[in-house]
Amino acid sequence: MKNLLTLKTWPAGDVDRLLHQAEESASSRTNRLCGDLTVANLFFEPSTRTKSSFEMAQKRLGLASLCLDASASSVQKGESLYDTAKTMEAIGCDALVIRHPERAFYEQLSGLNIPIVNAGDGSGDHPTQSLLDLLTIKQEFGQFKNVHVVIAGDIKHSRVARTNIEILNRLGAHVSLTGPEKWLDDSTGAEQILSMDEAAEQADVLMLTRVQTERHQGEDLYTKADYHRKFGLTLKREKRMKRDAIIMHPAPVNRGAEIAGALVEAERSRIFKQMQNGVHVRKAVLQHVLELENATIDNALV
Amino acid sequence: MKNLLTLKTWPAGDVDRLLHQAEESASSRTNRLCGDLTVANLFFEPSTRTKSSFEMAQKRLGLASLCLDASASSVQKGESLYDTAKTMEAIGCDALVIRHPERAFYEQLSGLNIPIVNAGDGSGDHPTQSLLDLLTIKQEFGQFKNVHVVIAGDIKHSRVARTNIEILNRLGAHVSLTGPEKWLDDSTGAEQILSMDEAAEQADVLMLTRVQTERHQGEDLYTKADYHRKFGLTLKREKRMKRDAIIMHPAPVNRGAEIAGALVEAERSRIFKQMQNGVHVRKAVLQHVLELENATIDNALV
Amino acid sequence: MKNLLTLKTWPAGDVDRLLHQAEESASSRTNRLCGDLTVANLFFEPSTRTKSSFEMAQKRLGLASLCLDASASSVQKGESLYDTAKTMEAIGCDALVIRHPERAFYEQLSGLNIPIVNAGDGSGDHPTQSLLDLLTIKQEFGQFKNVHVVIAGDIKHSRVARTNIEILNRLGAHVSLTGPEKWLDDSTGAEQILSMDEAAEQADVLMLTRVQTERHQGEDLYTKADYHRKFGLTLKREKRMKRDAIIMHPAPVNRGAEIAGALVEAERSRIFKQMQNGVHVRKAVLQHVLELENATIDNALV
Repeated sequence: MKNLLTLKTWPAGDVDRLLHQAEESASSRTNRLCGDLTVANLFFEPSTRTKSSFEMAQKRLGLASLCLDASASSVQKGESLYDTAKTMEAIGCDALVIRHPERAFYEQLSGLNIPIVNAGDGSGDHPTQSLLDLLTIKQEFGQFKNVHVVIAGDIKHSRVARTNIEILNRLGAHVSLTGPEKWLDDSTGAEQILSMDEAAEQADVLMLTRVQTERHQGEDLYTKADYHRKFGLTLKREKRMKRDAIIMHPAPVNRGAEIAGALVEAERSRIFKQMQNGVHVRKAVLQHVLELENATIDNALV
Repeated sequence: MKNLLTLKTWPAGDVDRLLHQAEESASSRTNRLCGDLTVANLFFEPSTRTKSSFEMAQKRLGLASLCLDASASSVQKGESLYDTAKTMEAIGCDALVIRHPERAFYEQLSGLNIPIVNAGDGSGDHPTQSLLDLLTIKQEFGQFKNVHVVIAGDIKHSRVARTNIEILNRLGAHVSLTGPEKWLDDSTGAEQILSMDEAAEQADVLMLTRVQTERHQGEDLYTKADYHRKFGLTLKREKRMKRDAIIMHPAPVNRGAEIAGALVEAERSRIFKQMQNGVHVRKAVLQHVLELENATIDNALV
Repeated sequence: MKNLLTLKTWPAGDVDRLLHQAEESASSRTNRLCGDLTVANLFFEPSTRTKSSFEMAQKRLGLASLCLDASASSVQKGESLYDTAKTMEAIGCDALVIRHPERAFYEQLSGLNIPIVNAGDGSGDHPTQSLLDLLTIKQEFGQFKNVHVVIAGDIKHSRVARTNIEILNRLGAHVSLTGPEKWLDDSTGAEQILSMDEAAEQADVLMLTRVQTERHQGEDLYTKADYHRKFGLTLKREKRMKRDAIIMHPAPVNRGAEIAGALVEAERSRIFKQMQNGVHVRKAVLQHVLELENATIDNALV
């Protein structure tokens, strides 16, 4: 059985195959597949774009969706994640998409007989976000080799940042970091640390991260304006970026903190493109774990 | 691109065309249309009937629906309405239906490239409610000219009442008001003010409004019984209504306040008919903004 | 018009016909039916499995679902259950599935012209849960006559337990009870009371119930370990069960209270099988109330 739990254990060849699949998916709006399969989306944390993106991917593939709102569920009666997931299997779901605040939550779910897609495990991982980031870079540069990616901001609390460092290195990109010193994860190793000014000038890809204020309660925080001036992408810094360099951000964006509001839709910004790619990547992931063939069916009348 | 933001700027001819479309829609239960379009419903305020009515209209048109529950979304992370809406556009939604507490919220959304349907903007407007009210009157009297509509109650806090006054006047109806003096909006101009006794006797259409207790916190309120006696449609007042006069109310109803509980389903009540019409009107509005042709497809087997 | 409000008034023959229908449904994964019908699911209490199970049954039958989340609805504005239900009828729903905390809530809804399925009425009844329990027993023993069913635990607060006692007796099963004395309902009559040790040894079906902690606030409760030792199915007690005896539980399970965690998926446990059966039974109930014929349509391409 296939899952998507973490990219850390995925060979580069498999990542590449999945990105290829996602690119194909991007070129056709609809490719409904045979079958009558149902995917349950279990979100135990708030989410707009990830949840909606998975739902859209399911619609585009002709999959039925069951959406479980954790706040209105038996989870309130203290049911374990395993029992909730096993219930969804028992009632006939064919795969589960799960977001859960607990790191590596999926380790509790090895007893399931249906595929699991990790839609974010606390401060752990968020593999479909990483894949959509990779797709966006690949679309732009055709490859990862020698592309200079600078990841900016709150690396320590960002599940995506840490996964991206690891996999981008594996795929041949050159990864640097920038941001407040205490938020640069020392476990990430040999990368180069840049000032935000240097980052703006040297990056092919300036990958901003959201300041995850809800995850570092109680720490000594910068004011928004302060953060922006020291570590954000200001209008001035953007002007010094390379001609073909792009801006990325997983969103939701704190306008005026990580990035000046006016740059969110700048010509070099790929922020909304990333969201588009999210649907393509999730279609590819669902096809992968459900082992759906790539045959597409024209269904203009359905 | 077509939107439905407010009826105030709609020419009477366009309103008429839309009502005509809605009447056609009313005569066929299903008229699924070609295509594979998705509409996102973004409700930032509680709603039963408006949200369900839009969802039903989408089902009847064969549109896929994405429903975003604002309480379980990135809105909690402080995302702007624009960024949320732009996200839904990026993931491939073809139109947005939005209810939001902020008046004229849609003015923030002029950068979108997909149609927006206003499903209620705070105490501003609620155009599909107005349209379903108009449809209900047109079905009854065949026209608006010389129909005497009395709008009763909390005019000041009712987004629908103020829009209806304006558009009914434009369409040739005769509009009067009744209700507590402090809730009669002085900005509405030249209308006649009636007592509730006069209103019951003179109206062709007695259009009750809900006492919006959640919107006038802190004001000096009437008790329910008090309000009913002074300004509500009592059993006794109903007996003095004209033979063909009808009762309307946008619901939810406060039984025993605006209207005696026993009158909610009286023969002359069109309250549940209005809800039926809501689906027809919303189908017509979605067809309008999505520029769907009116061709219907028989799909008994789908 | 057909409803499913309570099994107490259903003749044994009708129960049998419905179980037969559910067994047929179990043998085919998909049996979409003609038509274009919409069912609204109105859940005024938290639920994972019942709500998801109904939704899955609707998908399998090709019915459209409208899901009303009571916490985000006009119910917050004080609307009566009747008005909410009537609204769903007015907008075109073909049947309502309702869970509501008030016992016999459906008595308020006799004015509706569409079928109602009771998905749990407070501490009253939960007929589809009873039906899935019956189906599970029938699948195992082929009949009810002389099957010894021991219902264990919180009989007093369990809507299902009391319904099951009545109907199992009517169908010819032998019903005993076990559990804390104060939770054994004295209204249930002539059944045999067993200790948990006796129950484990004598039962063909050991039907555990959930300790409904949220329904007996303020009572003197056992600790989890205490309850388990005195009244729960421990590993040791399970060893003394008859060779073909089965374990049932409506879930969600309090692991380590009613049942040792390791027994939830024991060979003789039918807990997840019950959930599977829930979908079959709900398909049969929806077919029954909507008077859908049993013709199935192959729709591999939809």
